[in-house]
Amino acid sequence: MSAGTAGAAATVLVTGAAGLIGRKLTARLLADGGLVDAGSAELPVRRLVLADVVAPEVPADAGSVEIASVTADLAEPGVAERLVAERPAVVFHLAAVVSGGAEADFELGYRVNLDGTRALLEAIRAVPDWTPRVVFSSSIAVFGAAPPDRLPNPVPDDLAHTPMTSYGVQKSIGELLLADYTRRGFLDGVGIRLPTICIRPGAPNAAASGFFSSILREPLSGREAVLPTSTDVRHWFASPRSAVGFLLHAATLDGARLGATRTLSMPGLSATVGEEIEALRRVAGDDAVALIRHQPDPEIARIVESWAPALDASRAEALGFVADASFDDIVRVHVEDELGGRIG
Amino acid sequence: MSAGTAGAAATVLVTGAAGLIGRKLTARLLADGGLVDAGSAELPVRRLVLADVVAPEVPADAGSVEIASVTADLAEPGVAERLVAERPAVVFHLAAVVSGGAEADFELGYRVNLDGTRALLEAIRAVPDWTPRVVFSSSIAVFGAAPPDRLPNPVPDDLAHTPMTSYGVQKSIGELLLADYTRRGFLDGVGIRLPTICIRPGAPNAAASGFFSSILREPLSGREAVLPTSTDVRHWFASPRSAVGFLLHAATLDGARLGATRTLSMPGLSATVGEEIEALRRVAGDDAVALIRHQPDPEIARIVESWAPALDASRAEALGFVADASFDDIVRVHVEDELGGRIG
Repeated sequence: MSAGTAGAAATVLVTGAAGLIGRKLTARLLADGGLVDAGSAELPVRRLVLADVVAPEVPADAGSVEIASVTADLAEPGVAERLVAERPAVVFHLAAVVSGGAEADFELGYRVNLDGTRALLEAIRAVPDWTPRVVFSSSIAVFGAAPPDRLPNPVPDDLAHTPMTSYGVQKSIGELLLADYTRRGFLDGVGIRLPTICIRPGAPNAAASGFFSSILREPLSGREAVLPTSTDVRHWFASPRSAVGFLLHAATLDGARLGATRTLSMPGLSATVGEEIEALRRVAGDDAVALIRHQPDPEIARIVESWAPALDASRAEALGFVADASFDDIVRVHVEDELGGRIG
Repeated sequence: MSAGTAGAAATVLVTGAAGLIGRKLTARLLADGGLVDAGSAELPVRRLVLADVVAPEVPADAGSVEIASVTADLAEPGVAERLVAERPAVVFHLAAVVSGGAEADFELGYRVNLDGTRALLEAIRAVPDWTPRVVFSSSIAVFGAAPPDRLPNPVPDDLAHTPMTSYGVQKSIGELLLADYTRRGFLDGVGIRLPTICIRPGAPNAAASGFFSSILREPLSGREAVLPTSTDVRHWFASPRSAVGFLLHAATLDGARLGATRTLSMPGLSATVGEEIEALRRVAGDDAVALIRHQPDPEIARIVESWAPALDASRAEALGFVADASFDDIVRVHVEDELGGRIG
């Protein structure tokens, strides 16, 4: 942490801390010794509360930062109240059931994505004289069109939300609640509509968007991958490293610059599946590309067609959010951060 | 009821039945002997369940229609389940705390407008093999702009919702839930974004929009009225009679014509306060107009400025929804329906 930062060292709460973005954010906060974002104020972190329904791993190299790992369900009575009792200066609310999971289990999706979010906001409202920055991870999935209709390319920031998944509905409701609780002065919310994260490391999750990552991730490790759509499907992407950058910037941004509209479409990289594959070819060669097997899945193709090909993120860009520069960079970030620089 | 109508006589449930629109809808259903809408199928009504937190009045002239009056709070456990146990063919969900009320009491607004709506939809989801038509009264208040920004005139049907009241947030969430429950096949929802109802009869309610009615209603009965804004404020109106017409049309419309977007901006009449006053002058004369006293209220002016001056309702118009023809008609509807044709 550089000298001359303003304010005392703070407590930071991360929900969904055991998930991909939660773990990356935790690692970054510990590596930087606090909330460090180019162009915004820095905030030293004294204590980091990591919460999830599965036990968040406590990093070994936490340095002087105190870590609390809490295994609990936000939607259970009393849990949110306990988590906010320490009055964290910043709350990163990342906990969510992903799109495929919320579609497969209607009740679970509403419980976690709606009731859990509302319980957190309500717990904050109940604490007097405290308006923490709440960073809410929303999603590109708030936008949708029923095929054969397509969303405009790019999707304007002010287009009505017509999500085609329960997950998208729940994220859109989260945006509305965040704005209302902010307007009423209960908290200071900033929502960010994350692009599809690519390349997701590790095992596939229940997201229908999983193949966008696996067609790169698996060949980069010498394994076969299945492509369920045509190569001309266009989508909107950010690397995990960029997503963490968005969160840090959202945490430290001056809320007054946002006005009444508290959620922003994040910048990203618009690419077709074919362009993804060509980036893989440039970084890892023809042998890697040869590991992709085309096996059409009409259900996944239908879901993907309802999504945004690209977002107009000019508002977020004007506020200093920065996307990956190229798809080759997205592939290289994965090779550096996940594979120790080694391909195959 | 005309001969040759399709289907057996049905049960109809009305929530918020004790409110203005609920009472007008009930009277119309009984006068017509069922759901009668020009251009749509007719549905004879055998039983009408009227529910509200205050006891809905049982009309004396119910004819052969069985009436059940239920005094209960939808957000209380078990209430929604009991109401839907009769499997009504059509549910009119009108119950709501109005804008001023939801702004004054944050918890009450969320409890009634969000929890009550969700409880109703959940109770319907829990009944197998039954997908009733659910007509949800949404509002122009889902659209908003933080002054000094203004909404576009007219507001496109596909503009993002940025409500400036908790009421608008709650209605927007209701629209999202209605679409999701419909997409998942749990019910067959049609939402209608009602214009501001004018002329509201009876005592003023807690809505900030109340003056739009009272500056006409009070002078028409020989009483003084207060105008809290300038005369060039433009807004979007429908008579109570038109609003009931929208509900009946929404109840009988073929859902397949709606596609995935289940809520429609209703047609209305765009008028300035000055144009309202000139309509009053034409129908009731200069003496009536002289009863309006201008007494600016900056808080009401601020709220009203965040509202839509007019909606683009072309989608609803193409589906057969019909607005009042002129503001003079809106005034005349009040004189006919509320004053027995007498002014002053």
